[in-house]
Amino acid sequence: MCLHIRPAHDSDFEDIWKIFHSVVQRGDTYAYEIESTREQASSIWMSKAVRTYVACIDGGRVAGTYILKPNQQGPGAHVANAGYMVSDEYSGRGIGKAMCTHSLDEARSLGFEAMQFNSVVSTNHAAIHLWLKMGFSIVGTIPRAFRHREFGLVDIYVMHRFL
Amino acid sequence: MCLHIRPAHDSDFEDIWKIFHSVVQRGDTYAYEIESTREQASSIWMSKAVRTYVACIDGGRVAGTYILKPNQQGPGAHVANAGYMVSDEYSGRGIGKAMCTHSLDEARSLGFEAMQFNSVVSTNHAAIHLWLKMGFSIVGTIPRAFRHREFGLVDIYVMHRFL
Repeated sequence: MCLHIRPAHDSDFEDIWKIFHSVVQRGDTYAYEIESTREQASSIWMSKAVRTYVACIDGGRVAGTYILKPNQQGPGAHVANAGYMVSDEYSGRGIGKAMCTHSLDEARSLGFEAMQFNSVVSTNHAAIHLWLKMGFSIVGTIPRAFRHREFGLVDIYVMHRFL
Repeated sequence: MCLHIRPAHDSDFEDIWKIFHSVVQRGDTYAYEIESTREQASSIWMSKAVRTYVACIDGGRVAGTYILKPNQQGPGAHVANAGYMVSDEYSGRGIGKAMCTHSLDEARSLGFEAMQFNSVVSTNHAAIHLWLKMGFSIVGTIPRAFRHREFGLVDIYVMHRFL
């Protein structure tokens, strides 16, 4: 599998929207409106306040996407934040890991000093396993802060690593 | 001292801006741009996505202000978030505590199930003491996530309480 990660263009939004819609509708990982519209998706994922990337395989098909941004402004702007989504069709092939590695490199080269995830759903074992392997630590646990579509109220973790 | 806390009107923004500017410029509590403009302040504090309140004393003078909003969307929208600012002139008179009590009541009546603060600067001892007294716990510690104007990089706390 040949994977190419690059900044997204506006014309990638159709592919990104399909992934976003599918991931968010599952209601098990992201604290966005389950029934987010294209416009809401665009304002989150394609906003000028974020950097948007796509992971392409098979000669250009978009298999995943991620965003990178400052987690906070001003005195908190040295800490990055990112969110990753992989197409159902291509899950389990290391695309999340490749995007995470890419995002850490990008964040470093943009001058960020750390990366923070604010809302890792505690039942998302695959993601947590990956972030721990990628050098993140769980630095906080918010009790019952995520209403999981299947499991009801579950904890979320705050995860962090220096760059 | 007679304190009255009420929803803010657009016409309160002049008073809110003075407080916001003074608090944010100190660079010791809020992760907003130190040199935030009036427009940035307005888009943070007067946005349609937040509820804005003012605490008035002395027959109507605005001595403090707070915002209340969902901390996240969708499956995270049952957790509230708030931010409080008190005018220098009126600090130390219990206005922060009164606003916090008011915000917990408001959040409860709006149907929120918990309140979360994402970024309590660890050197802000007065605030931390108050939140602990108000029933909040420290549920996370993000190392060196705030560039304090005086002390350099300091930790931030995530604080939480159920309603």
